[in-house]
Amino acid sequence: MTVVTFTTDFGTADAYAGVMKGVVLSLAPDAVLVDITHGIPRHDVAAGAMALAEAVPYFPAGSVHVAVVDPGGERADLVVESAEGVFVGPDNGILSLAARARRRTFRIDNPLFRREPASPTFHGRDVFAVAAGRIAAGSPAENVGPPMREIVELQAREDGPLAGECRGRVVHVDGFGNLVTSLGAGSTDGRWQLHCAGRVFDLHGGRTYSDVAAGGLVLYQGSSGRVEIAMRDGSAAELMGMKSGAKIGLRRLA
Amino acid sequence: MTVVTFTTDFGTADAYAGVMKGVVLSLAPDAVLVDITHGIPRHDVAAGAMALAEAVPYFPAGSVHVAVVDPGGERADLVVESAEGVFVGPDNGILSLAARARRRTFRIDNPLFRREPASPTFHGRDVFAVAAGRIAAGSPAENVGPPMREIVELQAREDGPLAGECRGRVVHVDGFGNLVTSLGAGSTDGRWQLHCAGRVFDLHGGRTYSDVAAGGLVLYQGSSGRVEIAMRDGSAAELMGMKSGAKIGLRRLA
Amino acid sequence: MTVVTFTTDFGTADAYAGVMKGVVLSLAPDAVLVDITHGIPRHDVAAGAMALAEAVPYFPAGSVHVAVVDPGGERADLVVESAEGVFVGPDNGILSLAARARRRTFRIDNPLFRREPASPTFHGRDVFAVAAGRIAAGSPAENVGPPMREIVELQAREDGPLAGECRGRVVHVDGFGNLVTSLGAGSTDGRWQLHCAGRVFDLHGGRTYSDVAAGGLVLYQGSSGRVEIAMRDGSAAELMGMKSGAKIGLRRLA
Repeated sequence: MTVVTFTTDFGTADAYAGVMKGVVLSLAPDAVLVDITHGIPRHDVAAGAMALAEAVPYFPAGSVHVAVVDPGGERADLVVESAEGVFVGPDNGILSLAARARRRTFRIDNPLFRREPASPTFHGRDVFAVAAGRIAAGSPAENVGPPMREIVELQAREDGPLAGECRGRVVHVDGFGNLVTSLGAGSTDGRWQLHCAGRVFDLHGGRTYSDVAAGGLVLYQGSSGRVEIAMRDGSAAELMGMKSGAKIGLRRLA
Repeated sequence: MTVVTFTTDFGTADAYAGVMKGVVLSLAPDAVLVDITHGIPRHDVAAGAMALAEAVPYFPAGSVHVAVVDPGGERADLVVESAEGVFVGPDNGILSLAARARRRTFRIDNPLFRREPASPTFHGRDVFAVAAGRIAAGSPAENVGPPMREIVELQAREDGPLAGECRGRVVHVDGFGNLVTSLGAGSTDGRWQLHCAGRVFDLHGGRTYSDVAAGGLVLYQGSSGRVEIAMRDGSAAELMGMKSGAKIGLRRLA
Repeated sequence: MTVVTFTTDFGTADAYAGVMKGVVLSLAPDAVLVDITHGIPRHDVAAGAMALAEAVPYFPAGSVHVAVVDPGGERADLVVESAEGVFVGPDNGILSLAARARRRTFRIDNPLFRREPASPTFHGRDVFAVAAGRIAAGSPAENVGPPMREIVELQAREDGPLAGECRGRVVHVDGFGNLVTSLGAGSTDGRWQLHCAGRVFDLHGGRTYSDVAAGGLVLYQGSSGRVEIAMRDGSAAELMGMKSGAKIGLRRLA
């Protein structure tokens, strides 16, 4: 039983995600299917790559991870074997943050691993689900097509560890309105000022949002290893008017 | 291991979809459960029928497909065996577009295949999930109740193939804001004018939205075999103010 | 094959729910994973407890139910064995409405059943999914840590059966905008007046919303055993301006 995961920007209002699962189960009846998320913002490849990279380490070794966020244009269809698992998706960077320790990469062009003619707008169904299904059923990855030497790589948005005075960016706003930053592990002790777009906010360094009173802002080590900013009983993103990509400065006061 | 799929208008904020799965697994512990979607617009039977018909061909033969969009009123509870699979749902047309090659149809009235008294507002739990679970566990469909000769049939909204000058309708607006039309395969080459409600839009015939610049509108063959209209990096539906059901006219310019 | 269910306020836009599933499958490869819902309103422990209690009776005996709605603060991490199943979650009341016939309760502090250091903001991943995975894989519940005698208990919001003149509250607004009340089974026959916040609405007693014309309000026995109020082809909650917690009075007119 191989786990096959899905990370897309398809949403769940349409049948698209279900269709991909049907294709996989038709080829690999024993596969165990798991949604990572279908809620990646439309065409936001970087957000998809981050979600995938965050989730993959918690799945069994040997899982097959399908990721499809595909703004279009010419790019190869990939299967990547790495220490982290097997990845299937477009060569636009979406796989590059999760599949770090890459061993072999192949371009999917064997017609057994795609349904021809593939719909130009639904490679998820006609290419990636087919390839993932066959691999989950035991086909060796090298059968999908010729090896590739390089893939498109995203730069992980990392700006070093949190320090008493530092700059970084918001790299993700989660469903709670929490701000995930580009800053890595560092002591969050003390009181802080956050500077962003000419505005200043007071933050309390803590472990979780329950360290502050309702409406308070807290700076803490997030579960993904990055420093995060949250509002107790509210949305920090909304309060502060921040979106993914916003530049921030942090300064410890005491 | 039988696949059981779910297509409903229940949404996922409540426990309703989970409850149906619990009922199925209680009767068929080996069933493989897959959501097609729970995001059908409330009580939109035609939209549910289309989503089901789009997804079913990609699932293994012999899968059991439960579909529940049920605006209420008296109608039979059905099990339909067809070349496409086994279908379970209300007799209001929701099964009729997916189960085309019907072999046998039965009305669910054997008390073994429903939980009595069935809640009038949750046949999904008390009737359809019970019948689907027992069938997935191996019960023959004819055991659910007496055969029926006819079921309520929806008219598939099809207006022939795309031609240089033609009329049709929007039959679905997907989560990306793409417009799925009632027009079937035809050459999309060239430049087009779309007429709708007294307004005119210029379209570029292409293969996918990446054939046009940001903000451009493209006419292309969609993944379901119908002609679609999309906006690059935006929502065609929003830009054009169109909803499902809108009448459109298309004219090739060159 | 053990069923493991998930009830959280994590939403599905982020990878959080997927990550929990990866952790469970890494420990219990044969587990069958089912979402009850990830759409509990943020930090609404009572809503989570109600959704869990509504769903659990429909799952196979022996299922493991993970529920995480966690506004923070110090509380124990629990495994509860009850006649209804095995429950894993924080000791804030979320398990208390579903796990009624409790046999044994344990505090999770054996490091084998949690990942240390556990992220203070994601016990779902580092504690509850780990404990659920090991239990689904066959570990006895008593291995997770020391027994506990009491857990935090929520009061089920019940105000007795529906009567000709009675008072109660709205305990849940579902995704359709239907109002689930604190009133239990009773005859809904006749015409009714609903009083709320100085306003009065006419209701028709019935079995389902299809007993009234479009726009009409109906009072009926809901699928969970509680009396509900729905609007035909609309949202009762929106029309009446009501939210969970609203106090209501009901009076039979004839």
